[in-house]
Amino acid sequence: MPSTVDALANLPLRDDLVGLHPYGAPQLDVPVLLNVNENTFGVPADVHAAIVAAVDAAAQGLNRYPDREFTELRTNLARYLGHGLTPDQLWAANGSNEVLQQILQAFGGPGRTAIGFPPTYSMYPLLASGTGTRYVTAPRDAAYAMTPDATARAVQDSGANVVFLCSPNNPTGTALGLDVVEAVYEAGKDSRAIVIVDEAYGEFAQTGTASALTLLPGRPRLLVSRTMSKAFALAGARIGYLAAAPEIADALRLVRLPYHLSAITQAAANAALTHATTLLSNVEAIKVQRDRIVVELQALGLTPAPSDANFVFFTGLENPHRVWEGLLEAGVLIRDVGIPGSLRVTAGTEEETTLFLSALKNLL
Amino acid sequence: MPSTVDALANLPLRDDLVGLHPYGAPQLDVPVLLNVNENTFGVPADVHAAIVAAVDAAAQGLNRYPDREFTELRTNLARYLGHGLTPDQLWAANGSNEVLQQILQAFGGPGRTAIGFPPTYSMYPLLASGTGTRYVTAPRDAAYAMTPDATARAVQDSGANVVFLCSPNNPTGTALGLDVVEAVYEAGKDSRAIVIVDEAYGEFAQTGTASALTLLPGRPRLLVSRTMSKAFALAGARIGYLAAAPEIADALRLVRLPYHLSAITQAAANAALTHATTLLSNVEAIKVQRDRIVVELQALGLTPAPSDANFVFFTGLENPHRVWEGLLEAGVLIRDVGIPGSLRVTAGTEEETTLFLSALKNLL
Repeated sequence: MPSTVDALANLPLRDDLVGLHPYGAPQLDVPVLLNVNENTFGVPADVHAAIVAAVDAAAQGLNRYPDREFTELRTNLARYLGHGLTPDQLWAANGSNEVLQQILQAFGGPGRTAIGFPPTYSMYPLLASGTGTRYVTAPRDAAYAMTPDATARAVQDSGANVVFLCSPNNPTGTALGLDVVEAVYEAGKDSRAIVIVDEAYGEFAQTGTASALTLLPGRPRLLVSRTMSKAFALAGARIGYLAAAPEIADALRLVRLPYHLSAITQAAANAALTHATTLLSNVEAIKVQRDRIVVELQALGLTPAPSDANFVFFTGLENPHRVWEGLLEAGVLIRDVGIPGSLRVTAGTEEETTLFLSALKNLL
Repeated sequence: MPSTVDALANLPLRDDLVGLHPYGAPQLDVPVLLNVNENTFGVPADVHAAIVAAVDAAAQGLNRYPDREFTELRTNLARYLGHGLTPDQLWAANGSNEVLQQILQAFGGPGRTAIGFPPTYSMYPLLASGTGTRYVTAPRDAAYAMTPDATARAVQDSGANVVFLCSPNNPTGTALGLDVVEAVYEAGKDSRAIVIVDEAYGEFAQTGTASALTLLPGRPRLLVSRTMSKAFALAGARIGYLAAAPEIADALRLVRLPYHLSAITQAAANAALTHATTLLSNVEAIKVQRDRIVVELQALGLTPAPSDANFVFFTGLENPHRVWEGLLEAGVLIRDVGIPGSLRVTAGTEEETTLFLSALKNLL
């Protein structure tokens, strides 16, 4: 009997997919999971109860299609983000990956180009490929930073139709200066480039780091995407969203699948948003552990990147894969993102962070 | 201040989207909703309770990403469908629209062609457009039927890479003979065409109508898609699925968004599947009303198409739009699918069906 790999070769797969492997961090059963930047504090009891109550109410009408316009969710998201945003400026989908895919379906596609700045979120090239969008890259500087001039030049030279700016950047963790966003927006004027600032980890920013939300007024090609997977501890609920000019939502309505957001997804998101205060207090606790990891890694002679996220990227390891394996043996799973000398760790609870740091000390 | 329509014109929308309007049946607030083929019996109390309990359990771990492989759901779906299917032959997504979109992303796309047989499900051309797949059509006969020879010839002549067979067909309601599916599969041999039999309404088939699931063994290019929106009364939960050879799932893994099915969606679907017996007894009650509509419409001198679905398509109206409006005034919303002389009505509860039939009698 042929394996499914051989059998797949007999199917008329699209040429550019042949030989590819599916995306996916390994899902291993390990006591301390610090590999995919989840919120390890869990869902607080009152948020859990509110979600169950909201789903209970929504389940009554599950035989009906959901509100295609997810009006209540957009209203709650606008209220949560602030910055004078109105519900018609909000859009949501099943994870920020689906939001980004819809943007590429509307503004990318065959004959169009998207640009990213690696190392950055590994889904950008996959989403581009899935929508037939050409994906090009431009480098960062040696410390993974981006400057307004060099970035603007790269955008202009590429003629990109869609620009991915990840801030704070995954996997390196540092937020982008707004001067970079402003310069990129200006540089994309002639090609009318859509500029996406992916703020999936925005809530974890250091005090004083401004969100690109502040730049939205007067910039109809600027889109700021966010997620409820991280600060809101809802990775399992798959809710991503964006804020932009109202006409962006009109464009996305042309490509979204009808009724793409289920009634229970909408209910769960609405319930969590009414408990933002509880959830954001856990964010503060995570930031404390994140900053602790940076300090302790430095004391170990390693070089952590400044982090505005719920994870720390660090370099200076002689053999990162051996360290990764040693941590795994000690019951701590972190992420090898494939960058020489480096690893990435999620900031967990105080206890998890201690387990990670002492296991690492033992290995070095 | 410009309207968002004018503002949209200033954005770099993909050329083929310019001027399009978003999909969407009107969502009106009317007492009797028989327009989008929902299951108007609602979610039974025990199913409701099971869904809430399952979401309660899942909400505990919502801070973690969901099972990317939705193993329990695939196991339950395989058990529900029977026909000797195994979990690795099942795949699911957020509504059958997302399943179909993933199929087009894997096997369609730029330079490839999909074929449909209108009047049929109106999303096929939109999904093709959204994935850059060329969409061509071939006609049905005068009674909207399809014969093996003509259909196979159309598939062969088109060189289509993806074939959409909707059975029972939406909006006309009649199931396809399996001889048509067999002939199409054979005709697609040279171009290795993917043949999708869309059985969204499969559970409502007349006794003796066989499912294309019976044809799966030995046909790796055959895909049978289903949904939990209709028979399972879960339109609001957005769960579609397909059965096919295991290598089809391998192909879809290359294009699906990682973690595309939320933990609460998986939990709700699993809970409903353990209550299939309750839900399928409502299906029998709906079929009784469906058959009653056919008989009573004939008695009114109209021509209903034979229906294997939870709706009836009928023709013979002088002014369908006036009838549609008259029904709306009487508090009954049905669907004008834009076919001359015709309308489509969902089979509801006995009471809803009576309200529809008496309102219609008053109008004729």
